[in-house]
Amino acid sequence: MTTPRRAARTPLLERLVPLVGFVRRSDRASLRTDAVAGLTVAVMLVPQSMAYASLAGLPPVAGLYAAIVPVVVYALLGTSGALAVGPVAITALLTSTALAPLAAGDPWRYAALAGLLALMVGALQLLLGALRLGVLVSFLSHSVLSGFTSAAALVIAASQLKDLLGLRIPRAEDFVGIVTSVAGALGTTQGLTALVGLGSVAALLVLRRFVPRLPGPLLVVVVATAVSALAGLGERGVRILETVPAGLPAPVVPPLAVADLTALAPSAAAIALVAYMEGIAVAKALAAKAGQRVDPNQELIAVGAANAAAGVFQAFPVAGGFSRSAVSFQAGARTPVASLVAALVVAVTALVLTPLFFHLPSAVLAAVVVVAVLGLVDRASAVSAWRTRRSDGVAVLLTFAATLTLGVEPGLAAGVVFSLAVFLWRSARPHTAELGRVPGSAVYRNTARYEVLTDPAVLLLRVDGPLYFANAERLTDQVTGIVEDRPDLRAVVLDASAVSDTDTDGAHALDALRERLADRGVALHLATVRGPVRDLLARAEVWPAFTAVGAVHRDVAAAVEVVDPGGRSPLRSPAEPARTDLSGVL
Amino acid sequence: MTTPRRAARTPLLERLVPLVGFVRRSDRASLRTDAVAGLTVAVMLVPQSMAYASLAGLPPVAGLYAAIVPVVVYALLGTSGALAVGPVAITALLTSTALAPLAAGDPWRYAALAGLLALMVGALQLLLGALRLGVLVSFLSHSVLSGFTSAAALVIAASQLKDLLGLRIPRAEDFVGIVTSVAGALGTTQGLTALVGLGSVAALLVLRRFVPRLPGPLLVVVVATAVSALAGLGERGVRILETVPAGLPAPVVPPLAVADLTALAPSAAAIALVAYMEGIAVAKALAAKAGQRVDPNQELIAVGAANAAAGVFQAFPVAGGFSRSAVSFQAGARTPVASLVAALVVAVTALVLTPLFFHLPSAVLAAVVVVAVLGLVDRASAVSAWRTRRSDGVAVLLTFAATLTLGVEPGLAAGVVFSLAVFLWRSARPHTAELGRVPGSAVYRNTARYEVLTDPAVLLLRVDGPLYFANAERLTDQVTGIVEDRPDLRAVVLDASAVSDTDTDGAHALDALRERLADRGVALHLATVRGPVRDLLARAEVWPAFTAVGAVHRDVAAAVEVVDPGGRSPLRSPAEPARTDLSGVL
Repeated sequence: MTTPRRAARTPLLERLVPLVGFVRRSDRASLRTDAVAGLTVAVMLVPQSMAYASLAGLPPVAGLYAAIVPVVVYALLGTSGALAVGPVAITALLTSTALAPLAAGDPWRYAALAGLLALMVGALQLLLGALRLGVLVSFLSHSVLSGFTSAAALVIAASQLKDLLGLRIPRAEDFVGIVTSVAGALGTTQGLTALVGLGSVAALLVLRRFVPRLPGPLLVVVVATAVSALAGLGERGVRILETVPAGLPAPVVPPLAVADLTALAPSAAAIALVAYMEGIAVAKALAAKAGQRVDPNQELIAVGAANAAAGVFQAFPVAGGFSRSAVSFQAGARTPVASLVAALVVAVTALVLTPLFFHLPSAVLAAVVVVAVLGLVDRASAVSAWRTRRSDGVAVLLTFAATLTLGVEPGLAAGVVFSLAVFLWRSARPHTAELGRVPGSAVYRNTARYEVLTDPAVLLLRVDGPLYFANAERLTDQVTGIVEDRPDLRAVVLDASAVSDTDTDGAHALDALRERLADRGVALHLATVRGPVRDLLARAEVWPAFTAVGAVHRDVAAAVEVVDPGGRSPLRSPAEPARTDLSGVL
Repeated sequence: MTTPRRAARTPLLERLVPLVGFVRRSDRASLRTDAVAGLTVAVMLVPQSMAYASLAGLPPVAGLYAAIVPVVVYALLGTSGALAVGPVAITALLTSTALAPLAAGDPWRYAALAGLLALMVGALQLLLGALRLGVLVSFLSHSVLSGFTSAAALVIAASQLKDLLGLRIPRAEDFVGIVTSVAGALGTTQGLTALVGLGSVAALLVLRRFVPRLPGPLLVVVVATAVSALAGLGERGVRILETVPAGLPAPVVPPLAVADLTALAPSAAAIALVAYMEGIAVAKALAAKAGQRVDPNQELIAVGAANAAAGVFQAFPVAGGFSRSAVSFQAGARTPVASLVAALVVAVTALVLTPLFFHLPSAVLAAVVVVAVLGLVDRASAVSAWRTRRSDGVAVLLTFAATLTLGVEPGLAAGVVFSLAVFLWRSARPHTAELGRVPGSAVYRNTARYEVLTDPAVLLLRVDGPLYFANAERLTDQVTGIVEDRPDLRAVVLDASAVSDTDTDGAHALDALRERLADRGVALHLATVRGPVRDLLARAEVWPAFTAVGAVHRDVAAAVEVVDPGGRSPLRSPAEPARTDLSGVL
């Protein structure tokens, strides 16, 4: 049931390089649509990748590099037809947080470390994919991811204020530090820069709101660059990109030092997790709309290989981005051919078009980042989570607050730990329901929810959850307590239909409960014990003590027939006896 | 249902002072056994408490103080009948580590800080107990406890070899260090000491094996002391206790300084947890053997109050000790009366009886400890756990190995983390079963376990486990995969009877699955959704999309009736329709 069935039927080449299958299943028309979508994405990708490179603390050209080879690699290996891989805001932020303390202001070392980090992220993702451990990623809940993304968006937006307003302040990584230094330096705002920056923000917002089909970032970049060149903004104190080197990245293996590997490991783990989660979520959503299928483990391999390529080709960690993927899908992308076209356009840009960016003000790139990430602040998820389950809402808020106050990685870690702790806490205190019979039926339901018939001599108790070391003692204590409170009880029927799993402690606790109740003259019966639980009880040598006395039943109704030999219990089902022999069915 | 019922019936005084209940439930014979056990413990407690005070960097008299009032306080409030509270090696070591850098060689300040540390430890434990956070301890599984106990027994036994054989080697705390130094010093074995030590071990083993009702440790101690005095063993090179100082403690509140509180806070937290974990682990193990029950929250309060008393009565942090508790239990202690007697004996001893122990060889005390703890090496649990579930067996072995190699605290931590990780891992990959109908019945069972009837147009799938963030995507992917593989499918019925809980992610994944299947023309139906899960789906606003199309059913049979309107499916139950209207029953 858990083994994917398609793998066996898919040719080897197609399994290793899913692009082959995409192309095989495509026709000329759809490939043309993909090419158009690729062009559309490239138009966003060029300015965004340069902007995200700045956010990561790298020269803009590193963003172009991250949008060429890694994009091609993902296009070959990925199973999503619309996912647009490349630099994204949050991994850029995590990259900058990881590298700033290590590089000590040395841009060469910074660039080398960025490559190393991407290699590490790629290696981790490839390893997880090869070991089919994509399931590890699932321990990052959407509540945590939502709180983290919202906070990271605010951190990113705040970090761009410096470039947006032309402030001369040192780089800061944490939200409080950024806001404090920005607030202290507002008096030094460079008027012309602020005009360009805030003007670009306004233009981007207006374009997105009223002309969503136009490539806003590209338009703003083109217009601003032209204005900057004509008005000589660079000579009037507005920071411009100046020379963006032309050419394609040559492969360079970053130097490996144990100290760097150790220092970067936590960040690499966080980026690997976040990059994959963001991509897979988008990929699944778009695949569902397109009637396609995404393979989570293959996605890990594809994005891992893309990151490894980013590491070797002078770039920085990449991920499947939300906004560009959505644009790509809306423009008709259904196969990775779209990504190939986008990468080609970026490559051409890197080869011949970089002189055009000489006069582009940094404030415009900052505006592109700010407008992109403000859309990531997700209030709706927080409200929905809070309404659905308080602890999920707390997870969103706690991750949000921790990310803002403690920093991005501790914030993410706090969210993951909190959500796992909540799960463990709930599992340790499982819900239980006392059951009665719905009149006129063989249906047994919670006495607290339905008008049902009960019997003072028989306790029907349903336990909702795995019976394991953290709750076994608590549950057996609870049953013992009820039995002590009700002297008329003759039998306890444990409805184990919702006991999904157990362990050695659970098995022994059940055995101890049986003995404890027997000492009080109360028989313990089990109903609807699921197969895996049955197997474990047998291996623990607990099962025979129940079967030997006929205390195991296929369901509650069958148990009642045995514990009520007189046939007068209100719990007894009115149904006809089964027409066939069900004695072998548990 | 989740509120403990016993508490309400237990008289208030007995709830506040569990000793009252212990005494009420005891008879004269058992109280006499407790008194003998208390005497036996006291004989160990006097020299051990002084030794541990030295280890903590305090004058020996502080050890005696720690063994009087704190022991009485624990005896009044504790729920363990055999736990021997007092100075223990690990907390003594942690105390010395915490205080040495602060006291700067000033013995008065050192003693005051020791009291302050004990007060802080006590306050933390009382706080946890008052907040009823003792449930935290249930995350310590019996498998982990068994591996920890076995390894700790070996560590303690090895630590006694030095005294048992009269070796002149420095004290070491970890197993490898102890074994290495003992092995290197075996050539320096003091013959007469080894004779006394090994002879005592033999005597204790023979007494325990053939005359288990006699207080072996006490007999051996008395006989050995007499022999030592008569034969003048102390003058022949056998280490004897010699002069034990005298005195009773007066209450003194240690001076509180904010700087000290801040500096000691981390150590206080560590000691509070370690002391409690060690004590509760021993208490749980011994209670299980005696058929008693330990209340984790009350234990926190009891040991917290004992530490507060230690702080006020010029002592240092105390805990439930491993070896003395084992000796106490083996000597027959079943109620805290044993501790009261021990404290009384220590108090009397401190005033007038110390000369009696002048000639007692240290090797005899070592023999008492060795024989006591070797009985706690628990091979049977390891074998049973391994046979029942491989991961439980691994938990035993891993905790055992980690405790021996990494130390007592890291070993325990490794075991707890491993067992929680196993639980999370299993929860993230829940068991699922495709169901079919048992012929001639309305019973639906796993197709892999029973000869059942199935329908290519209807998938009946049971999910065994909570549907939550770590498994929701995996499960919905799995269902989507099956649907893609079976083009004849018209409906999927998810039997949620074993889905014990869910969260925001689970709810949204279910909704996404419904939409995804609908896109493929397959209807998703839910059967036997448990009340709490239903409530959450409603709050997540996912429920109405199912109820609006009649896709929610009280059980699988009812779901089949709806998804098979033609009435020709082999899944359809042959049972008569219910005689009553069950439309309101879910």
